[in-house]
Amino acid sequence: MRGDEAMPIKALVFDVFGTLVDWRSGVTRDVERLLARDHPDLDGASFADAWRARYQPSMEDVRTGRRAWVDLDALHSESLDRVLEQFGISVNLETRHALVLAWHRLDAWPEVPDALARLRERFLMAPVSNGHVALMVALARRNRIQWDAVLGAEFVRDYKPRPEVYLSAVRALGCPAVDVLMVACHSSDLAAAAACGLSTAHIARPDEHGTGRGEAKPEVPVDFVATDLNDLAGQLSN
Amino acid sequence: MRGDEAMPIKALVFDVFGTLVDWRSGVTRDVERLLARDHPDLDGASFADAWRARYQPSMEDVRTGRRAWVDLDALHSESLDRVLEQFGISVNLETRHALVLAWHRLDAWPEVPDALARLRERFLMAPVSNGHVALMVALARRNRIQWDAVLGAEFVRDYKPRPEVYLSAVRALGCPAVDVLMVACHSSDLAAAAACGLSTAHIARPDEHGTGRGEAKPEVPVDFVATDLNDLAGQLSN
Repeated sequence: MRGDEAMPIKALVFDVFGTLVDWRSGVTRDVERLLARDHPDLDGASFADAWRARYQPSMEDVRTGRRAWVDLDALHSESLDRVLEQFGISVNLETRHALVLAWHRLDAWPEVPDALARLRERFLMAPVSNGHVALMVALARRNRIQWDAVLGAEFVRDYKPRPEVYLSAVRALGCPAVDVLMVACHSSDLAAAAACGLSTAHIARPDEHGTGRGEAKPEVPVDFVATDLNDLAGQLSN
Repeated sequence: MRGDEAMPIKALVFDVFGTLVDWRSGVTRDVERLLARDHPDLDGASFADAWRARYQPSMEDVRTGRRAWVDLDALHSESLDRVLEQFGISVNLETRHALVLAWHRLDAWPEVPDALARLRERFLMAPVSNGHVALMVALARRNRIQWDAVLGAEFVRDYKPRPEVYLSAVRALGCPAVDVLMVACHSSDLAAAAACGLSTAHIARPDEHGTGRGEAKPEVPVDFVATDLNDLAGQLSN
């Protein structure tokens, strides 16, 4: 905790999937919409969970340098092929494309748009997500989110939790790392950001992976613990 | 000219210095404010012109790969040392820093903020400038400009007119190059963008370098010729 220290925070950088947007409901909705006619018994949420389970492993070849950087649309598309196989479903190219774009049509958690607008009155704001620019722009436009810049994976052509993703964001914002607050609902993300010298804020998203299946509390030391973004905005305005 | 073709433009990318902000008036103002006490006869506009004259050469070592990418604050700082010497002026470190930051405090041409807000209702919008992210953010905040993303030099760690600067922006926006409209008041910038397949719009800034010293008309073929951003917005709404 920052305790009685003066508040030097100048910029807020955000994880997006889980922290700002509810990927599970959105992907479930589009999977069921696109596949229900031919597969009426398909459980969209199970499909979404299986797809997301391939998310972290899919980035590993880029992180280790075994593979040149490719964006999340490409990784989501490759993972999708495996999940479709796993579920015994075959689709045409058009449906496959529409499924990948489900990740561009996610809705923010309810408090997010207004809370971000309130925070932006006092802080520079940027996503530091593993999502690429076009994906961040689509989600921001859909959810009335306004950024000062889009940092993160495509900016540095690497994936969190690699240190360069956080450090490139700090450099781009032009202030000391400790003045940049990483905001996320995943302790692993916050631990990596803290190791790079950033300040950290944990947002509870206890239902990220379904009811009761998400981080309700941080599992690592952080500077701020918040129940949601309104709570964080309140703490930062003290 | 695009003539009777359908309008596929989805995103607008902007040159900033000269096209959106009046660098000469802003730098002149800050130079005179910061140096007038010790140098009451200094012509701030001549100083600004001498500084800007070193702008293109200063980027050349990065473009050729002889030097790793450094941001415009670093290049402006190096050029400033030479201009101070040229004018026989010596300053302390604090004043030197304040002078470099003059480039963060530039004002937009009068029509720019409202015209950009109007254009943003229909198009994705990003600067593709040789300015780095922190500089773009400072100018945007100062002038009530809202971007979807900040692309350009720092995103790709190179300087215009190198093709990768334009091409990286196109890739980040996720649409075909011809659907991206490069907007600039410099024919050299537009020629380089067109060579990369982007569409192009020339904005007249006849007074960029002082009265009557700027491009009133494009010197290369472009898709749109506009007197200012309101004129461009009108043409794009047809």
